[in-house]
Amino acid sequence: MRTLGVLLFPEFELLDVFGPLEVFGHRSVAHHFRVTTIAREAGPVVSAQGPRALADHGFADCPALDVLLVPGGMGTRREVDDPRLVRWIATIADATRTVASVCTGAALLARANVLDDRRATTNKRAFDWVVTQGPRVEWVRKARWVEDGKFFTSSGVSAGIDMSLAMVAHMVDPVTANTLANTIEYTRHADADDDPFA
Amino acid sequence: MRTLGVLLFPEFELLDVFGPLEVFGHRSVAHHFRVTTIAREAGPVVSAQGPRALADHGFADCPALDVLLVPGGMGTRREVDDPRLVRWIATIADATRTVASVCTGAALLARANVLDDRRATTNKRAFDWVVTQGPRVEWVRKARWVEDGKFFTSSGVSAGIDMSLAMVAHMVDPVTANTLANTIEYTRHADADDDPFA
Repeated sequence: MRTLGVLLFPEFELLDVFGPLEVFGHRSVAHHFRVTTIAREAGPVVSAQGPRALADHGFADCPALDVLLVPGGMGTRREVDDPRLVRWIATIADATRTVASVCTGAALLARANVLDDRRATTNKRAFDWVVTQGPRVEWVRKARWVEDGKFFTSSGVSAGIDMSLAMVAHMVDPVTANTLANTIEYTRHADADDDPFA
Repeated sequence: MRTLGVLLFPEFELLDVFGPLEVFGHRSVAHHFRVTTIAREAGPVVSAQGPRALADHGFADCPALDVLLVPGGMGTRREVDDPRLVRWIATIADATRTVASVCTGAALLARANVLDDRRATTNKRAFDWVVTQGPRVEWVRKARWVEDGKFFTSSGVSAGIDMSLAMVAHMVDPVTANTLANTIEYTRHADADDDPFA
């Protein structure tokens, strides 16, 4: 059983968070993953689209994680300049077996210096901005997602669902990932290099 | 400007709610749609996957809606037997210009009798159960989504994103819907009859 924690911050992108949580929280993998949400403080966090989610934990009472997932969204533009949040990511990423980002969440991982000398990708519309946040990262312009060691980084928004299914294939097995995709009636991009939006 | 309200209930399916809210809440259509979440009472509502969302309004203070969206999820199995919730849906659906469901949310619309003598679809894995909730509905087994008059009903989970994009194409314009899909790097099923999961 792995504990997967998703970071929330004001103006997170809804689908960056809830696409992956649909996958990792699905009843068909409930004996493999426990999912939780984390923010500076437990409680309500407003998304970029307006609706609010609840963080189960604050930084102070964050449980030990096996997987950390950092979403993107307009809020990343501000969060990259918050030393406390960036330091929290660096600390947790060091202690965690698997680290993932969706979309501009890669900018936060980059600012925490955990992607240095690694291959990574991000949203195509915000690519040039994200690159400036991690000059030592080997940014990949054409990829649905990139896996490098313990790091998984996905392209924009919906690509987080494909990355999550690939992580389930990796951590559980490929048949389970395929069955899960079919159950949620999702047409997968199962190939990391299959990027129609590059 | 249209107000779109999404119904939340315990054990709603995350992607049924947040796929459509990603679309209707996207900044590119922010001058067309105002999105809000509604439950029996305002406050936290637990999803089928575990993470909690906040309902902005309770039934008692629900604003006037232009679009009502009813998600699916395991919770529908219980909610179909709650007369107060079913009556609320019937009342709001009557008063609302456009009504949509994702996945087994169609079972709740069916129990509210608002789909009688109309064509509708639902999740493929739960199809036979949903059919029993609406014997007078013309259920369509092969469809990514179905539009009949003011009603839009989608297939399972991810199909809600395609239906939402089709609704944006209908209510705003097709170019805006396509641009939005590309911005969220989502490979659309743009044809309602293109159902790979039937």
